[in-house]
Amino acid sequence: MKKNMRKQLKDLRLKMQEYDIEIYIVSDKDEHLSEYTGAHFCALGEFSGFTGGDGTLAVTPNEAALWTDGRYFIQAEVELKDSGIDLMRMGEKDTPSVNMWIREHLSENGRIGFDGRCTPYLEGVMLAREDRSGLGPLTDTDMCGLVWKNRPEEYVSECWILQEGYCGQSAGEKLSMVRRAMSLAGAAVHVIASLDDIAWITNLRADDIPCNPVFSAYMIIKKETAFLYSDIRHFNSEVTAYLTDIGIEIRDKDSVFEDTANCEGPVLLDRKRCSYELVNRLKAGTRIIDRLNPAMTAKCRKNAVETENIRLAQHMDSLAVTRFIYWFKNTVFCEGEASNKKVRNASDAASALFNEEHKEGQRYITEWDCVRKLHELRCECGKGHFIGESFNTISAYGPNAAMAHYMPSENAEVPIEPHGFYLVDSGGQYYEGTTDITRTLGCGELTDRERRAFTLTLCANLRLAAAVFPSGCSNLVLDYAAREPFWKYGMNYNHGTGHGVGYLLNVHEAPVGIRYKASTQEGIYPLEEGMYLSDEPGFYQQGSFGVRLENLLLVKKLYENEYGSFLSFETCTLVPFDTSCIEPSLMTAEDIRLLNSYHERVYRELSADLNERERKWLEMQCRPVAFELYSC
Amino acid sequence: MKKNMRKQLKDLRLKMQEYDIEIYIVSDKDEHLSEYTGAHFCALGEFSGFTGGDGTLAVTPNEAALWTDGRYFIQAEVELKDSGIDLMRMGEKDTPSVNMWIREHLSENGRIGFDGRCTPYLEGVMLAREDRSGLGPLTDTDMCGLVWKNRPEEYVSECWILQEGYCGQSAGEKLSMVRRAMSLAGAAVHVIASLDDIAWITNLRADDIPCNPVFSAYMIIKKETAFLYSDIRHFNSEVTAYLTDIGIEIRDKDSVFEDTANCEGPVLLDRKRCSYELVNRLKAGTRIIDRLNPAMTAKCRKNAVETENIRLAQHMDSLAVTRFIYWFKNTVFCEGEASNKKVRNASDAASALFNEEHKEGQRYITEWDCVRKLHELRCECGKGHFIGESFNTISAYGPNAAMAHYMPSENAEVPIEPHGFYLVDSGGQYYEGTTDITRTLGCGELTDRERRAFTLTLCANLRLAAAVFPSGCSNLVLDYAAREPFWKYGMNYNHGTGHGVGYLLNVHEAPVGIRYKASTQEGIYPLEEGMYLSDEPGFYQQGSFGVRLENLLLVKKLYENEYGSFLSFETCTLVPFDTSCIEPSLMTAEDIRLLNSYHERVYRELSADLNERERKWLEMQCRPVAFELYSC
Repeated sequence: MKKNMRKQLKDLRLKMQEYDIEIYIVSDKDEHLSEYTGAHFCALGEFSGFTGGDGTLAVTPNEAALWTDGRYFIQAEVELKDSGIDLMRMGEKDTPSVNMWIREHLSENGRIGFDGRCTPYLEGVMLAREDRSGLGPLTDTDMCGLVWKNRPEEYVSECWILQEGYCGQSAGEKLSMVRRAMSLAGAAVHVIASLDDIAWITNLRADDIPCNPVFSAYMIIKKETAFLYSDIRHFNSEVTAYLTDIGIEIRDKDSVFEDTANCEGPVLLDRKRCSYELVNRLKAGTRIIDRLNPAMTAKCRKNAVETENIRLAQHMDSLAVTRFIYWFKNTVFCEGEASNKKVRNASDAASALFNEEHKEGQRYITEWDCVRKLHELRCECGKGHFIGESFNTISAYGPNAAMAHYMPSENAEVPIEPHGFYLVDSGGQYYEGTTDITRTLGCGELTDRERRAFTLTLCANLRLAAAVFPSGCSNLVLDYAAREPFWKYGMNYNHGTGHGVGYLLNVHEAPVGIRYKASTQEGIYPLEEGMYLSDEPGFYQQGSFGVRLENLLLVKKLYENEYGSFLSFETCTLVPFDTSCIEPSLMTAEDIRLLNSYHERVYRELSADLNERERKWLEMQCRPVAFELYSC
Repeated sequence: MKKNMRKQLKDLRLKMQEYDIEIYIVSDKDEHLSEYTGAHFCALGEFSGFTGGDGTLAVTPNEAALWTDGRYFIQAEVELKDSGIDLMRMGEKDTPSVNMWIREHLSENGRIGFDGRCTPYLEGVMLAREDRSGLGPLTDTDMCGLVWKNRPEEYVSECWILQEGYCGQSAGEKLSMVRRAMSLAGAAVHVIASLDDIAWITNLRADDIPCNPVFSAYMIIKKETAFLYSDIRHFNSEVTAYLTDIGIEIRDKDSVFEDTANCEGPVLLDRKRCSYELVNRLKAGTRIIDRLNPAMTAKCRKNAVETENIRLAQHMDSLAVTRFIYWFKNTVFCEGEASNKKVRNASDAASALFNEEHKEGQRYITEWDCVRKLHELRCECGKGHFIGESFNTISAYGPNAAMAHYMPSENAEVPIEPHGFYLVDSGGQYYEGTTDITRTLGCGELTDRERRAFTLTLCANLRLAAAVFPSGCSNLVLDYAAREPFWKYGMNYNHGTGHGVGYLLNVHEAPVGIRYKASTQEGIYPLEEGMYLSDEPGFYQQGSFGVRLENLLLVKKLYENEYGSFLSFETCTLVPFDTSCIEPSLMTAEDIRLLNSYHERVYRELSADLNERERKWLEMQCRPVAFELYSC
């Protein structure tokens, strides 16, 4: 693969020479700036070999550099080894930005190039300023496409209508809401490029991008008319009639550029969610009202029908993952190692009990076996409701779990040995909503460092979920609840604590999230009732182990009094934590109380749907942990 | 006073009629958008009667409304009573913005007006959009000035040079730093209107605005030249020579508008810190590089000389306030009430001891007595170093303390009775830096609600000061440490937890602060080494009592390890907390440990500079509090 990649880079460099481009920037985005893209747009992976979810590649005739963030540092190090591509660790002090790097590498009259259709507008504007050719950058040519052999076609799936019983609001009502927001902002036109916003407004779902039930389209909404720019093959006669009925006209996808050029402003659009090429098509002098798409700020607050459905989806998903853990514990532990272990608590006792009964296979199970098993259980527990995974399952044993977004592979058989941690981060798309859950499971003996990391992660998860906060509270504030247990020991983790989650949409949904750094206004948003987000602290020791514990939370009203209106979280995910991994002396009495009360709820909600063996195991797994008197 | 105010409003309305203005907006700003202004610019107070530190008044022929924030709600209610002016509580859900209010009140072709020289640029742009006259708003006329009888003159004080031994960096070096920042940003010109930035760059101090040692001026910096636009009377021959020497030319103040109009861009300026009138003078098409003034982002991180000096200033100031508390405790408690009190702990025992010895006067002391005494003690303890107060002392007994920024008055004799809380928030300007401290003192019997409020406030103060956080951490994140003790009980306080503090400059210094709401990028800033800020949680029960406890903190490096670089705070203020007010059962063992360790430090650092009676009292005041086993 490395070799192939270097050949692609060589071809790209020849093409750059032909076009007299000195630095070419390869983005990992599609035209809609989606986080996940179809294979057609995976130029970054094709030309660099890096398969992480976020990155930028800059190529000169002799050098190349790839920028990615903390989630992917370890993975990128592995994948870029010997590739001749330098890894640029974003967020670290000495890492130059893409622009700084260009300034250092571009010669006096050098020209740069990038694909303006797949580059966010503001990024494009900043890049364009670096050009020194006097011609401006080359932005209308997809240079990767010119040399990419056997590039996959864009996938066109069939759209289907998500009924109101699932989503709680008709597309007609959503269009009216968007038009009200346009009118309040003083806009005559609204241009949308983000796929999840378009799927949300139209109540259409599809399968263009794996795990993301969206379809490739642009949308332009005016006071009286609305246009959907998309491949006609998406729409069968039922959907076509449905769209006509709500006043949406289907147009050829590429005509969006011409129609944008003909817009009479003011135009409401989110410059962070439109491409350089699209915004540049607006007539000079058109007033742009640059703000978050109204669909985005509406869909992040789930309505009553959606939240009720989410609870159903979470029940099915939690059942599947809990049954997976039962299977895992009683397969891995069968390998004859359990007897070497000190029985520490109820959970170990439960495992030991079932080890006695369940001596099955001889072969170690692999990371990939777990992916398959989990898929089977989701199909079984969510029959008729489960549509597919909401992202590729991260199933990682030992040091692999230190890569926060490691992907197991069917071909590399990684056995799960009877010691250390196994981490599984997965989620499902259901008609009733989207799920995302991570558990870290002990496989046998653990080191003190591993136990401490697990316990602090658990405290972080529980404390964030238990937070009480006034309405208007910025999402950044709450990260302290999760980080404080780590920070006081001089520890930290290199990813956000939480992200918004869509309703049968993208598993990462802007604008809300829980993090402690904010370099742009973009990441800052007050928490409001109905928001649905993840709580996933973790800890990673490169080359050794990784821990992450993730539940999904719904923001709900707590009460209102003379000091304001207070909010809190409802934890939606109901899957036991592996109490065999904790070091109780690191937990406060309140942490223990939170853990026990969560487990009580897990048992109450799941036990009726388990078989007798599973139920007995869960009972022991959820047994209260005792507070250690001289702790903390 | 109310009557006078109504007369002024009446005159303003007549003038509005004359100019055909339907809504006129009165700002409380000066030309430099200073938080505190000289009396010349106090139009808001003059025309509304509201004397709080922040507000906007909108006037129609028949109605008027005044917007202010949570710090001033209670005060504004009192001051606006029967004035015919509606109070608009900013930040509350149903409160319309100034713009929304104008939209509701302006007739079809109505014209609005405001003084563009005293209105922040962006606010002016937003206001201007509301005009319906077709002429645009009237912005070059100070309508208040036209009808304001006996308006005070602008005060012009004499500038003096702050030597490098105090500020650690010459003005020449600061100018070079600003020019490097301009060059990095690609700017040819930098326009500055903010007074503290100008005082910082020039190392000049003055006395134009009470408590804020700045002078009224604009500044324009170019690559080779620099101009200070100010009243020539500020500068004696020594200062004039000094300025010439560092290449700064003094020009007539008003010529800044003409010079701005002649600027060849790109122009670096902070649109939030320049007036509507100033920015509008730029030639059409001039590229504005809109970012925080380089002086602002530099001066918020105190250098090594400044931090060393700050410790000296804090020692003098802490000594004065501690001696004040000794005086207060042993004067108020002399009123014969102490014997009614249950002796709860060391602090009460200390008071009782001295009550026995110190039976002095008969008269209750008043809020104003305390202001005078504190000033005397600052003069005494800071002899030759203390320049004056850094803001008007808030000295508030009982319900008065529920107004977060209440000002005592010499004429209204408010006696301090032997029950409830007395709150004193004060600070000094020293050659060695600026201080700001609040203590709340028990005056005798306290209710359970009062004790709980005090204890939670104390926990909040101590926990924030003890926080450990990675560099890059946003200021918003840390507010959770202070708010969490309140939030979990459904309590809250309606002001920020912390603000930046200048070095012998403004006591409120942007951009850093600790708060949990963020509606604009402005309030969000990562905490960095050398930042100097307040830690001042509080709790206010309207009509009943107020508690606030404030220390100043310096951000310092803690350590660096494989997970990042960690920061923590050094508490600079060293004044005992009144432990007679706490309810230990609400504190965790860690809270108690933090309190005792702070008091140990207070005693160690101050005792040598106290007389024997004071020292014995402080020893008892700082005696360790015991943890109550079944607490929390």
